[in-house]
Amino acid sequence: MAPASENPEPGAPDHPRRQFLSTAMAVSAVLTAATSLPGTEPMPSTPANQNPRLFSFVGSDVGTWKVTSQRTIVGEALPSVARVEVVAGDVAAAESGWVLRGATSHERYVTRSEKNELLRKQVALGRAEATSGAILPIRKNDKWWALTQEERRAIFEETSHHIAIGMKYLPAVARRLHHCRDLSRVEPFDFITLFDFAPADSSAFDDMLTSLRATEEWKYIDREIDIRLERQQS
Amino acid sequence: MAPASENPEPGAPDHPRRQFLSTAMAVSAVLTAATSLPGTEPMPSTPANQNPRLFSFVGSDVGTWKVTSQRTIVGEALPSVARVEVVAGDVAAAESGWVLRGATSHERYVTRSEKNELLRKQVALGRAEATSGAILPIRKNDKWWALTQEERRAIFEETSHHIAIGMKYLPAVARRLHHCRDLSRVEPFDFITLFDFAPADSSAFDDMLTSLRATEEWKYIDREIDIRLERQQS
Repeated sequence: MAPASENPEPGAPDHPRRQFLSTAMAVSAVLTAATSLPGTEPMPSTPANQNPRLFSFVGSDVGTWKVTSQRTIVGEALPSVARVEVVAGDVAAAESGWVLRGATSHERYVTRSEKNELLRKQVALGRAEATSGAILPIRKNDKWWALTQEERRAIFEETSHHIAIGMKYLPAVARRLHHCRDLSRVEPFDFITLFDFAPADSSAFDDMLTSLRATEEWKYIDREIDIRLERQQS
Repeated sequence: MAPASENPEPGAPDHPRRQFLSTAMAVSAVLTAATSLPGTEPMPSTPANQNPRLFSFVGSDVGTWKVTSQRTIVGEALPSVARVEVVAGDVAAAESGWVLRGATSHERYVTRSEKNELLRKQVALGRAEATSGAILPIRKNDKWWALTQEERRAIFEETSHHIAIGMKYLPAVARRLHHCRDLSRVEPFDFITLFDFAPADSSAFDDMLTSLRATEEWKYIDREIDIRLERQQS
């Protein structure tokens, strides 16, 4: 039988658990160096085989983003935290607070013309002036997930105008959508959206959320947290 | 700050790595007991927080399914193995052979009438007479994933009749589709489909694959392995 080419972890057949631990510690060292987050414990997969589209949102006492408000819109609350760090890769757990995870992926609903318009207008996260931010984790109910693609699209856009509403706030509001539903672990939310914008655009951002929350689509959302952020210059 | 309610791992702040290892070993014991697969090393997440829709396909010298043929249809080969086990949950690596992972999820392409017809006709895996099986891991190219949903659906069904072709072989062929693209690790395939059927339906199954491989959709597939199986009665 050929060697395990799909699994880049080096093999140590007679000491698998020792190997496992040392790999975990090596990854821990890498992640700690990258994020300066004490008390986080990564998964024992080498950085090389982590999904490069996966991000962890770590709520604790440390991090780049200071939490200015954290509100539960619907469903169970999330423990309050002082700071949030957004980390590329998979952080398994923090000593305190919480870790949410999600992966960016291909678009599920946009048409070609909508996609082309989005590509023309949207901007990337991290502009110097975009020192305000928000994280909006949401979960949709079982009724939503039992719908077919065409039924979901009809509610999402033809009825609720989700894409059209978002488009009105481009390029002021930058956004990155993360999918959580098909990760290896059960995640408490289906989607996490990370936004950033200039402080002057905060009320426009509020208007956008007010519009979205009034839609038919939002009736399928059974958990939503609204976390507002301010970037700390170190 | 409230405790880490999103992370069911018990905390041991002063000995996180020791806790980490003992959790991993406990999970290892559970998985080994469940699968009798020596040399597999699970991820250090408790069974309680694993995605219940996640499955691992472990190719090695042991397992319920005997490999009767393993052919590379397109792209890089997968190391040849003698047996395959299909395990609920996440198996991180095997001592030898390979582990592929995927999660069942909501349907991405069917219309309501197609979904209703599928629900009427399809059967679950594991019928007593279904002692023949197949695993078909496929990967689609970047061009496919850059298409919009409507463009993918048009190729998938209106042009390639993927659903209609599959429907012709129901209920003889049972099937379970697993998505691999948005898992926490980079997986070598985008989809894994597991099939089972009675040996008498083997040539019908071959006809189905011949039809599918002749479609426009299949031009977007850049890696495909065809693994045929026979269930071993122990």
